[in-house]
Parts: sequence; C-alpha cells; structure tokens
Amino acid sequence: MALIVQKFGGSSVADAESIKRVAARIVETRQAGNEVVVVVSAMGDTTDELIDLADAVSTVPAPREMDMLLTAGERISMALVAMAIRSLGHDARSFTGSQAGMITDAKHGSARIVDVTPGRIRSALDEGAIAIVAGFQGFNRSTGDITTLGRGGSDTSAVALASALDAEVCEIFTDVDGIFTADPRVVKKAHKVDRITSEEMLELAANGAKVLYIRAVEFARRHGVTMHVRSSFNHNEGTIVYNPKEGEEAVEEPIITGVAGDLSQAKVTVVGIPDVVGKAAEIFTIIAEAGINLDMIVQNVPAADTGLSDISFTVAKTDGQAAIDALNAAQAKIGFDKVIYDDEIGKLSVVGAGMRTNAGVSAQLFTALSTAGINIEMISTSEIRISVVTSDTDLNNAMQVVHTAFGLDSNVEAQVHGGTGR
Amino acid sequence: MALIVQKFGGSSVADAESIKRVAARIVETRQAGNEVVVVVSAMGDTTDELIDLADAVSTVPAPREMDMLLTAGERISMALVAMAIRSLGHDARSFTGSQAGMITDAKHGSARIVDVTPGRIRSALDEGAIAIVAGFQGFNRSTGDITTLGRGGSDTSAVALASALDAEVCEIFTDVDGIFTADPRVVKKAHKVDRITSEEMLELAANGAKVLYIRAVEFARRHGVTMHVRSSFNHNEGTIVYNPKEGEEAVEEPIITGVAGDLSQAKVTVVGIPDVVGKAAEIFTIIAEAGINLDMIVQNVPAADTGLSDISFTVAKTDGQAAIDALNAAQAKIGFDKVIYDDEIGKLSVVGAGMRTNAGVSAQLFTALSTAGINIEMISTSEIRISVVTSDTDLNNAMQVVHTAFGLDSNVEAQVHGGTGR
Repeated sequence: MALIVQKFGGSSVADAESIKRVAARIVETRQAGNEVVVVVSAMGDTTDELIDLADAVSTVPAPREMDMLLTAGERISMALVAMAIRSLGHDARSFTGSQAGMITDAKHGSARIVDVTPGRIRSALDEGAIAIVAGFQGFNRSTGDITTLGRGGSDTSAVALASALDAEVCEIFTDVDGIFTADPRVVKKAHKVDRITSEEMLELAANGAKVLYIRAVEFARRHGVTMHVRSSFNHNEGTIVYNPKEGEEAVEEPIITGVAGDLSQAKVTVVGIPDVVGKAAEIFTIIAEAGINLDMIVQNVPAADTGLSDISFTVAKTDGQAAIDALNAAQAKIGFDKVIYDDEIGKLSVVGAGMRTNAGVSAQLFTALSTAGINIEMISTSEIRISVVTSDTDLNNAMQVVHTAFGLDSNVEAQVHGGTGR
Repeated sequence: MALIVQKFGGSSVADAESIKRVAARIVETRQAGNEVVVVVSAMGDTTDELIDLADAVSTVPAPREMDMLLTAGERISMALVAMAIRSLGHDARSFTGSQAGMITDAKHGSARIVDVTPGRIRSALDEGAIAIVAGFQGFNRSTGDITTLGRGGSDTSAVALASALDAEVCEIFTDVDGIFTADPRVVKKAHKVDRITSEEMLELAANGAKVLYIRAVEFARRHGVTMHVRSSFNHNEGTIVYNPKEGEEAVEEPIITGVAGDLSQAKVTVVGIPDVVGKAAEIFTIIAEAGINLDMIVQNVPAADTGLSDISFTVAKTDGQAAIDALNAAQAKIGFDKVIYDDEIGKLSVVGAGMRTNAGVSAQLFTALSTAGINIEMISTSEIRISVVTSDTDLNNAMQVVHTAFGLDSNVEAQVHGGTGR
C-alpha cells in the first residue's frame, strides 16, 4: 500500500461545492488502495478577509496574533474537507499543524520547519482513516505558540509531511495542468512538461514561474521527495518533479526544459564610481545591510578618460525605494555620481539540465533575440540557466521567440485557468 | 491588585468597530490597576455561517470535526481583540482553550470542564500582559482533540477561569443592562435587579430567563464565583450574582426577585391509564429512555367510574414529537387510551429566596392570576420558585399582572436592546 500526500490550495476548496469535489477526489485515491494524507490551504479569499480585519483593528498587527488569526483559515477548510469525506462513507480526521507535529522555529509569519513528528497522522492512517492536515501552520515548542510558514507555506507543509511519512509522492493539486514550458497566458504554444528535475524547477520558480514555491521545491530536493503537480479539475497526469540519482540525467533530454519571464524586478545603476579597490564591496555591503537581496549584477570596466565605472544590479521592485535610499545616504562616503532607477525591465530565463552537456545554448539564445530585434541589457548564468534582462515591453515577445527557437512549441494551444492559492 | 475576568459575547465583537470599543473597555479596566483576563465568543454570525458550511458539505457533520470547525470562530475574535489592545499600547496575548488549560471530557459539542490549568494565563498576567482567551472551547487530554462546551459555553469558560484564577469577579458583558425582574420586552415596567443570589438566578435561567446560561450559573454557584452581568454599551453597574454565606440572606429582601416566562415547552397528556401500580413509572421510563427531560408533572386521581387516570407533563417543544413516538410505540404494552399534545402553553415562574421565610406567596400568585381571568393548567414548586402553566396567549398578560401584584413595577420603562451571544 502506497502512502500519498495530496495538497489542495485555496482555489480548490473555495466553497462547499469545491470541497465536495475535492473530497470525492481524495476518496478515489483511498479506494485505489492508497493511504492518503491531505494538506489543505484556507478557503479562497479567507486569508485576505482576515488580513483586512486585522488591518481594521490595528495599524501594525502583532505577528504572534496575526498567526493566531490566519491559522483559523485552514482550521475551517480542513474540518469541512474531513466532514465531506465522512459523508462519502470514509473515516477522515483533521489535524492542526501542531497536532500533525509540524515543529517550527519561533519566527512568526515566516517560520521554518525544524522537525516533523507525525505520530498522530501515522496512527490515524493505521486505523484506516484519511488524515486532513492544516497547511501553512506549525507550532513552536519553546514558546508553545502557533506559527505560520509564510508564502507557499502549504506546499512546504505537504512536502515536509511527505518526507516525514516517507510518502511515495506528494501531489500538488492546482488550477493548471502542471508545469509548462512557459506561462501559457504569454506563450500560446507552451506545453506541459511531463518530467522536470527539482533543480530545474528551482531555477524556474526562482525566475518567475508561479506554479510552485521555491521553498517547497528546495525542501523536496533536499529530502528526496517526488512531487506531482496536477490539476484538481481533471484526471490528467501533470508534471513529475523528481530528484535524479547521480548520472541519471538522460542524454536525450531536451536541452531547454522551460522559459520563465519575470516582471517583478527593477534595475539600479550606480553611476560614476571611483576606480578604487573595494568600492564595489562597499556598495553591496550597504545593500545587504538594508536587508535587500540582489539578483543580477553587471560591472562595467572603468572609462579610459575619467577612470570612473558603473555598477548595475537588479532587485525586487518592492525593495527599489529602500535600495535608492540606502545608496543615497552613502553617496558622500562612496563618492559616486548618482543612482539611476529603471523599473521598466523584464527578465527572461531559459532553464535546462541539458545545458551542462550542451555548448552553444547562449549563442542560440542571443541569436534568436537579436533576430527579433530585442535588445539585451544584462546577462547572468548558472550551470543550468541563462537569464537576460530586456525592456519590460519586449519580454512577452522575447519569451515567444525563445520558446520557438528552442523547439518547445506545441501543435495545440494550451488551456488557461486562473491563479494559484497559498 | 484585583484580578478581573471579563467575558464579551458575539454581539460585542461583531465587527472591527465593536472590537476596538471592547479593546478600549478592557484597557480601562487594566489602567484602573487590575489584572485582566478576557474571554471572547466568536464574532457575530460567524458560528451560524460555519454551521451553514458544515451543512452544505455534509448531512450529519461529525462532532469532532464540527468542534474543529467552530473553534475557528473564537480564534479569529481573540486574535483581533489582542491586536486591538496592543494598538492601544498595552501588551495582550491570545490563548486557545487548550493553551489556557481548559481541560474537558471528550463529549464533542457539549463537553464538560474537568480541570482548568491556567499556567500560561498566570504567566502572561505576571509579565504584565492582558490575557485573551477563546471561550466555548476546550481540550481533551486522552484523545488530544479540541472540544466545545455547547450552548452558553463562553459564559462557562469565563466562570471556570475566574474560579481557577481566584478572580475577584467575573464580568459578563452583554447587550442588556443586567438581570431584570422580568423580560423588559414583555413587562414594560420591569427593572434591573442590583443583586441576586446564584440560586435565584439558576431558577430564573432554568425557567426562561435568557441573559445567563444555567451551566455558567451552576458553575459559579458551586465554585463561589461572583458574577457581574452588565452592558457593553454603557458603564452602569449591572447585576451582581452572588453566593450568600450561611444565614446571610437579609430579612428585608423582596419576597420575589423576578418573574420568568417560557414559551418553549409543550404539554403531553397520556389519557386513560389503567389504575395499576407502576404504570406511571413505566411511562416515565419510556420518556427517559428516549433521552427526553421532563419538567412539570401532574397526575390526576383515577376517575371513580372507569378506574382510569391521566398523566400530563411538559417537555421542550423540540422533544415533543419524540415523546409522542415513544409513547405510541408502547401504547399496547401500557394500555392507555391516547396521547394528547398541546404546544400552545406558556410557563410563568416567580422566583425569590424570600419565599423560604414567607408564607402565602402561592395564594397571592393565584389570586392575581384569577382576578385577571387567567386559567392555570399545571403547578409546580421548588423551595424558592412557583411555576404555573397557562395558555400561551395568556403568558404575557400573566407576567404583567404578577409583576405588579408582587410590587416589582418600576416607575420608568426599561430600555430594550437585542438578543445575546453564545
């Protein structure tokens, strides 16, 4: 008998009808002879409504209380899912994060899982029940307080439980059919990928693909959990996110697995930096001390006439103002001319484990873009990814062009649904 | 420094504005130099909405899951109240029933408190914080499951915490000014009672007065907790519900403290019972085995000509059909003629500790009713209460008449608000 963990997001349990449909799906899996552990998010808009209430009674809601408040959301959905399953004649029991043994640190709002002790879940399964677990939430042992895992928390809960229970697979149900070669809302001929390594998935997620959260994929990769991303609206096979064993990567795998676009970044350019050793380090220290993560970095060689150089880097748009403020405050000390801010950029990334063994991917990419008249402002690469910055208005066209150039186009156009839950 | 427990019902925390008002009230009590523990119910209609959802996904929701579901309600309100207090510059921490040490038996939906271990509450108070506790909910140690206390649960939570923490008083905030000599919606000249014994309060609550739940008053009486029922809309003194020490009842107390009316009962008459020893016991055993509580009982003497007698008793209307079914199923065995069901009755009760030392209360009551032309169908008495059954259409008039006859009328008409929360 296999143990399967199934995770259903907020849009899959948005109302009573959806919950009944999800319950039927869970029962199917049970009837196929599997042990089933289900992780659920809060219903549809519940979390947003609770945040609105918090904002209405409090200017800066206390993080401990915010976690207490938000965890009510999964409590509601998990109890309803358990009831709906019981109505179909199967035993089901719901468990809070704390009851399920999701032990975290004490960082309210973005706690990290430090241990999973799923004794009660294991007992429920042994007694023939389906276990329904609240996603997104945990428990800190030293304070005795309830915590939440932050964005993507329910995916992470599901993967962590799958790991602790040694599940065969962690199925992530969503409103799309799986992982696509590109966002099908942008690239009409994008097609579903049958299998992708967790390393590729990480690069895609980190560079704009929205279906899975980075943290969950990281956890799955570190703990060897196989994920199956699939639709809650049909029974099609979705995308398997797997962890290849040493040397398992097949030669005939496509060089490029997917193309991701990201409009959430902005470019900061520090102009006229004196050509003195350590100036670049000073700038990056200032940015780091402001708690801002850098993504891509380009440093020009100093101009021959002035001896001054420029440094450009990208940050999340939400960090843009903070980056400018931190730099301006240090202008006199560092001695640069000015800061230029550009939030009209797009980042295109191509990802594929096949890059490791195939030369010429960069050349193929740059050729495709230049043929289409698309200008490249910045470039960065990892072992299995190449990212370029274009203007934001060029991004969608760039994705189409690159998708075609790497032979990813499908013969049929993809069906498109809405967004995903937490 | 006194420790005060304050309980706010669902209507007091119905929306963000109400929650902010409640928070300000709590802070006032803290600033007056008291330690404060607050027990809250779920916001306004939350519980009803959750029950509707449960009914939508499930025909007979599993009690364990229903408790898991409903306890989300207090979780939301307590976190919001804590946030609102913190916004006013005071430390506040919310605690679930389980965190507050409300240990119950395992009877989901109507669990009984078996122990209160408020160590975390005491610690929070010692650190200068205001503790906000979820009412209505508890925790069973042997199953590890969340439980709820049933109707009036939040009042009971508050009284139990007041007892465990040795609080000076348990303030029950509601939408009326206190306990009245009669329901002011029925008897316009009803007036607020300043003090009432818990024994009197029990009789009033058991006979139709709605402000306090019987269980909470019973708990307060058994554990010597003083309650203060007061309005959350003004700062007036409400009604003190106290536990007199032996011999403390003052001679000059009014004979009658209050008048209660109850339209929730129905009368069942079993007609033509053979005059054989044990027939009455058989009937009451059948009713008891059907899980139905009897209230008043009247047995006629056997008719001289037939040797047959009748027995009438009252039950809650909600149990009426079950009582009829149980009796009809046993008709052949017991050998009675038929069952007559009358749900058009009203029960009037007068309550007062002064009855113990004053004769003639019954006579005064019956005279008042007969003068007003009101017919009495059944009578029952306790040491401090007399109840009579009238027709339902006579009940309001009967309450007015009796209220006047016992000198309870006030010179001014009472202000009337809405209902009360759980």
